[in-house]
Amino acid sequence: MGLAEAEIIALIRKMVGQPAPGVEVTIGDDAALFHFAGDSVLLTTDSAYEGVHFDIDTFDYSDVGWKAVAAAISDIAAMGGEPSCVLLAIAYGTAPRIEEVRSLIGGVLEMTASCNCSLIGGDVCRSGGGLALTVTVAGTPPPGGAVLRSGAHPGDIVGVTGMLGASGAGLYVLKEHSDELRARFPKLVEAHLRPRPELQAGQLLAAAGVSAMEDVSDGLACDLGHICDESRVGCEIEASLVPIGDETRALATEIGADPLDWALGGGEDYELLFTAHPGHFETAVNALALHGIPVARIGKIADESVGRVLVTDEGRKELEGPAYEHFS
Amino acid sequence: MGLAEAEIIALIRKMVGQPAPGVEVTIGDDAALFHFAGDSVLLTTDSAYEGVHFDIDTFDYSDVGWKAVAAAISDIAAMGGEPSCVLLAIAYGTAPRIEEVRSLIGGVLEMTASCNCSLIGGDVCRSGGGLALTVTVAGTPPPGGAVLRSGAHPGDIVGVTGMLGASGAGLYVLKEHSDELRARFPKLVEAHLRPRPELQAGQLLAAAGVSAMEDVSDGLACDLGHICDESRVGCEIEASLVPIGDETRALATEIGADPLDWALGGGEDYELLFTAHPGHFETAVNALALHGIPVARIGKIADESVGRVLVTDEGRKELEGPAYEHFS
Repeated sequence: MGLAEAEIIALIRKMVGQPAPGVEVTIGDDAALFHFAGDSVLLTTDSAYEGVHFDIDTFDYSDVGWKAVAAAISDIAAMGGEPSCVLLAIAYGTAPRIEEVRSLIGGVLEMTASCNCSLIGGDVCRSGGGLALTVTVAGTPPPGGAVLRSGAHPGDIVGVTGMLGASGAGLYVLKEHSDELRARFPKLVEAHLRPRPELQAGQLLAAAGVSAMEDVSDGLACDLGHICDESRVGCEIEASLVPIGDETRALATEIGADPLDWALGGGEDYELLFTAHPGHFETAVNALALHGIPVARIGKIADESVGRVLVTDEGRKELEGPAYEHFS
Repeated sequence: MGLAEAEIIALIRKMVGQPAPGVEVTIGDDAALFHFAGDSVLLTTDSAYEGVHFDIDTFDYSDVGWKAVAAAISDIAAMGGEPSCVLLAIAYGTAPRIEEVRSLIGGVLEMTASCNCSLIGGDVCRSGGGLALTVTVAGTPPPGGAVLRSGAHPGDIVGVTGMLGASGAGLYVLKEHSDELRARFPKLVEAHLRPRPELQAGQLLAAAGVSAMEDVSDGLACDLGHICDESRVGCEIEASLVPIGDETRALATEIGADPLDWALGGGEDYELLFTAHPGHFETAVNALALHGIPVARIGKIADESVGRVLVTDEGRKELEGPAYEHFS
């Protein structure tokens, strides 16, 4: 026998516990009330649907909760901001078992706790389909102002934190349903199920004066395309400089795939892609190095007329991934 | 041929047009940035699923957009607040036609414009099922502080704005698929498809010092139950005082229904239900009267031990509607 709507809300409220500082009104009223550090507030919302963004045969419910919130918080990281509070709209196809709700909310709260922010409200209803989550995050911009997609200039260096393609490779591993494969590629599985928003990196990059920033959610090609669209510039990316981790390369070799495809088009890495004037790029690299955050220079911003170029051993070609189009 | 995700976002951005005052970063970046009047912000989120909250054979797409946003803004009204900005997460089962998107967003923008707030961001993706909308609204609390569900005291008067049951009666009319019936009950159809958040009433009631407030979204019995839960009180409602409009009564007579069932359990009226000390109740009634907003006294708050009572001609009984339970 599954839980009723009121029972789900009561369980979530109990799991959230006492309100954290800043929370003036929390779960249980028509709206929540939060006290922010200033009067300019970052707001973002992001949905995850069963069968589209995740499957319950490869995800635990706690992974579903974690990742949905991580993806939304990552948008705050991409502005250089700090998350303050989270609203969670959940829709179930049928009344969920208590263990399912406890696991999902457990994952949500692990994620919010790791980012020092609070779950303060939301909505519970029936979906008419599978499980669906829409996560809204409110946060504060960095002291120097939010870093937009529109600030890139020709001559800027293009950089990215961490490694790319691990999440796409992890999805491949999960879809094989092989315990042996999962055991050999733990970092890839972790990258897909439990991504971490790069909040500290985002704040350091904002402080270093980077010119544009975005998180890698759709894949390098698509996300850099957004920066080019908004900044009206082109870019030249060197394939050999795109940072790809050992497990990703090893899996690609094993199955005869090109790991660059995962980096360019896999998406969901939630690393930060940014552009910076060369002087600011050096400042940024030094700041990240002090905190042990890996960063790579992968190319440069060019005039819009140059287009979006990937430079490989075989020559120059259009920068494009096997892009994920929701409605294709 | 339906629209791709990027085309939907481009269309929405074009329809939204120039950013309104307060909008520092709008659609097209990782997160939006809004400048609020103060540093305490009301936040609420609300979902609407095809087949659960609406059907496309009875709603136009513009009604779907209007109502989803109206329902979320109503939660801000219920705190006595003012809405500032809206985020819209839309999920489509299949690529939508341009006319569908234009109609839906048209309804969203009609609603936001009527409330002086702006659509500043959101998310577009595939749902794996039907059409789904999750609307997040951020706003500012009233000068004297948000009105909560938890402030009711024994002896307070229970009041409600407008008329109840019209939305539930309207749903009956729509489900009959009869143009003749629709033509005879236009107010009921309007109440169900195009509810209006009672923002002005909410602000006047907050200023008058009402002790608790909630919008009627689940039906009087359930919503007053929330106030009783949060305030740890009981209530006595007089059935004869529950305000029910002429069209609702006429339809009930015609089909042999009890209009009180729609008022107690129909929900989605988005009128404001409130409690107030008798002195404050008089202030509130006078303030609403000056603005031509109807309000009715329907009963009083009692000790928790009294329970939740409906007083009818036949005697006292438990206050309950044919309540809507999402997972039943």
